[in-house]
Amino acid sequence: MNLHEEILDMGKKAQIASRALLLLSPRKKNHILMDMADELDSRKAELLAANEKDMNEGRNEGLSDAMLDRLQLTESRIGAMTKGLRAIADLKDPIGTKISRWIRPNGLEICKQRVPIGVIGIIYESRPNVTADTSALCIKTSNAVILRGGKEAINSNAVIVRALTDSGSRRGLPPNAIQFIQAPGHDAVRELVQLEGLVDLVIPRGGESLIRAVTEQARVPVIKHYKGICHTYVDKSANLEMALSISINAKCQRPGVCNAMETLLIHEDVATSFLPAVAAQLRERGVELRGDEKSRTIVPDLKEAVEDDWYAEYLDKILAIRIVPSVEAAIDHINTYGSRHSDTIVTEDEEAMKKFAMQVDSAAVYINASTRFTDGGEFGMGAEIGISTDKLHARGPMGLEELTTYKYVIYGKGQIRG
Amino acid sequence: MNLHEEILDMGKKAQIASRALLLLSPRKKNHILMDMADELDSRKAELLAANEKDMNEGRNEGLSDAMLDRLQLTESRIGAMTKGLRAIADLKDPIGTKISRWIRPNGLEICKQRVPIGVIGIIYESRPNVTADTSALCIKTSNAVILRGGKEAINSNAVIVRALTDSGSRRGLPPNAIQFIQAPGHDAVRELVQLEGLVDLVIPRGGESLIRAVTEQARVPVIKHYKGICHTYVDKSANLEMALSISINAKCQRPGVCNAMETLLIHEDVATSFLPAVAAQLRERGVELRGDEKSRTIVPDLKEAVEDDWYAEYLDKILAIRIVPSVEAAIDHINTYGSRHSDTIVTEDEEAMKKFAMQVDSAAVYINASTRFTDGGEFGMGAEIGISTDKLHARGPMGLEELTTYKYVIYGKGQIRG
Repeated sequence: MNLHEEILDMGKKAQIASRALLLLSPRKKNHILMDMADELDSRKAELLAANEKDMNEGRNEGLSDAMLDRLQLTESRIGAMTKGLRAIADLKDPIGTKISRWIRPNGLEICKQRVPIGVIGIIYESRPNVTADTSALCIKTSNAVILRGGKEAINSNAVIVRALTDSGSRRGLPPNAIQFIQAPGHDAVRELVQLEGLVDLVIPRGGESLIRAVTEQARVPVIKHYKGICHTYVDKSANLEMALSISINAKCQRPGVCNAMETLLIHEDVATSFLPAVAAQLRERGVELRGDEKSRTIVPDLKEAVEDDWYAEYLDKILAIRIVPSVEAAIDHINTYGSRHSDTIVTEDEEAMKKFAMQVDSAAVYINASTRFTDGGEFGMGAEIGISTDKLHARGPMGLEELTTYKYVIYGKGQIRG
Repeated sequence: MNLHEEILDMGKKAQIASRALLLLSPRKKNHILMDMADELDSRKAELLAANEKDMNEGRNEGLSDAMLDRLQLTESRIGAMTKGLRAIADLKDPIGTKISRWIRPNGLEICKQRVPIGVIGIIYESRPNVTADTSALCIKTSNAVILRGGKEAINSNAVIVRALTDSGSRRGLPPNAIQFIQAPGHDAVRELVQLEGLVDLVIPRGGESLIRAVTEQARVPVIKHYKGICHTYVDKSANLEMALSISINAKCQRPGVCNAMETLLIHEDVATSFLPAVAAQLRERGVELRGDEKSRTIVPDLKEAVEDDWYAEYLDKILAIRIVPSVEAAIDHINTYGSRHSDTIVTEDEEAMKKFAMQVDSAAVYINASTRFTDGGEFGMGAEIGISTDKLHARGPMGLEELTTYKYVIYGKGQIRG
C-alpha cells in the first residue's frame, strides 16, 4: 500500500469502528478507560525507556529546552496521565442525552439527542500525554480517533498507544477505535485531513504554522485556534490593586501559553497612577515592555510599540501597552487586533462591564479575573481536547459535550404530510 | 473598485454592521421586522412588475417550467412572505439567552450565553422569498447578512432588498446590516466565500453543483446539504397499511424536494405481500420503479436497478427498490448509500426501532412517519434558513438557534491563577 491507500484504509477502518462504538454502554466504556489506566501504570518502565530514547534523539537534533521539557515523561507525569484517564471515566457520559423533546400538534414526538461526531483526527506535537488524554475523551464520547503525534515523541507515543489498544481490545473496545499514524512527514497529515466522508472532524494542536497548514489543506471540518492574543483592560473605575494582581498573573504566571496576556490596555484617567506601578512590577519579573506614545510620556524608557506589536502573540516575557481614552476604544482595539480567545476588563463600573461583556467578540470574556482561567480543567469540564476560537460548533475550551453532535429521532404513528 | 475590492468592502461594512446590531433590543428588532412586512405590502405592485420582468427574461432564456414556477410571485405568495416576516418577529429571541451558568470553587461565575455568529452569507437560486426570509432570520438573530440571489430573480430581489433596507433604516437598522451582491457571475461568489475573518458562515442553498462549487472555493465555514437520498425501510413486523401510506407520501407528495424518498427497502419476509401492493399504487401515480434482482422475481416487470441507483437523488417520480434480509442490512444500506438527511423505519418491533434510531447516522431518523416532515416549519421552529447534513454546529432543519453561537462571560472578584 502507498501512503494514500494506507491513510484511506485507516479512515475506512475508523468509520467501521465508530459504528461499533455506538453499541458500547457507558459502563463498558468506563471499564475500558479504567483498564487503560491500569495498563499504562504497569508499563511505566517500558514507557520511561521509550521516552528516554525520544529525549536522546531530541537532544541530538537540537530541540529547544522548552520542547524537551514538553517531551519528557517522569513517574509523576505518567501518574498524572493515568489519573486523567480515571477522571474521564468518572465524568458524566453525554452520549444519548436528550437535549430537548417536544410533541407537534400532529402527534409527532421530536427528540433532539446527543450522538458521537463519528471519526476524529487529532494532530499534535511533542507532549505524549496528549495521546492518552485525547484517546480517552474520544472513547468516552464513542468517537473513533486517528492520532498523529509529532515525530519527536514517536517512541513514547507508540508505547502509550499499544497500552491503550491492548487493554482496550481485552475489554471489548472495537478494533481500530484508536489508530496511530506512524508514517513520517507532512504528506500523511495532508492525506488524513482530506478524507472527506470518512473523517468528521480534525483538531490540530500546536504552533500556528502547523495549524495553518492543516487548515489550508483540509477538506474536512477543522476546529482550532491559531493563537491567543489576550488583553487586559484596566478601566478608569478599576480597583487598581486588583488590576495590578490580575495583570501580573495574566502575563507572568505562564507566559508561553495561549491564554497569557499579550497586550495591556489602560484607561487614560488612571494611566499616570497605574502604569508606573505595573511597569515596575513587570520589569522586576523580567518582562520587556513596549508602549505606545502616550504611555512613553508616562514611563519614558519603555521601548516603542509599533503596529505589529498589537498583532503579536509573544508567548514570552514581552508585553505591549496602550493608553486608551474609553472602554469603547478598548473594545475596538480588542476586536481589531485580538484573536477572539480571552480578554478581561478590570472595573467597578456596571455599565463598562455590560458593554465589555456584550461587545468584545471573544470566546471567553472576563470581568475582574485573569485570562489564565480559559482551560477545560479551570472551567470545571474535567478535561479538554483543545480550545476553539472558531465560532461554529465549539467556542472556548472543548470538553466532552463539544465532541458530540446531535440527531433528531422522530416517533410517529403513521403520520404523513398533507 | 474592481470586484475583489467591492466584495471586500461589503465584508468590512457587514462586520461593522454586525457590531452595531449587538446594540439593538429584541423589541427594536421586532419593530424593524414588522415595518419591513408593511413596506413589502405597500410595494406589492412594484414587486409584481419587477417579477414580471424576471419571468419574461426567464421565458426568453428558456428556463424550465419548474424554475419559472419557483421564480414567480403572486399576490398570495407576497402575502405569505410578509406573513413570514411577522411570524419571525413573533418568535422568541435567542440572543442573550443563558445556555448554562455555574460557579467554580474559587468563586468564578461562568455564564455560557447565546450570541450572534456575526456575518452570514447566503447564496441561493430563483425563489425571491428566500431574500425576505433569510434577511429576517438574520436580523432577528442580530447577524449581518450578505445576500447573493440567482441572476434570474435579480429584479424581484432588488425590490425586496430595497423595501427591507429602506424601512429598516427608518427604524434604526444599522447601515449595511442587509447587503445584496448585484455583480453577475461566479467570481462574486468566489470572492464572498473567501472573506476569511470577515464572513463567519456561508449557507448555500440550491442544486448540488452550486453547493459543491461554493464548498470547494470556500475559506470560511459552510453549512449545507449536498442532497437528500432518503430511505423508507419496511420491517418484517411493519403495519403494512401504514407502510403503504408512508411510502406513497414520502415518494409522491412532492417528489422534487430533498426529503422525498428515493429508495424503498423492504424486509424479505414481507416483500411478497407488500411489494406488489406498493408497486401498483406507485405506478398509478406515475412513478417509475427500479428494483434489485430479488424484487424483480416478485414483480417481474420492474426496471433493473444498478449500483448507481442506490446513490441517486432522482428528485423525480423514480424510485429504487431493494429487498433486504434484516434491519441490520437496511441500516447498513442507508449508512453506505444515504446522504445522512432523513430516513424512516416502519415497524411494530421495539428492538428494531431502537437499533434503527441508534445506528442510522442521519440528521433525522423517523419511526413510523414520513420523511417529508424534515422541515423547520414542520418541526415547529417557525422558520428555517436551510437544512444541514453536516455534523458540526447544526444538523437537520436550521432555525433561529442555529444562527447563533455562544461565548463565555466569566464574572470574578479579582481571581488569579495559582
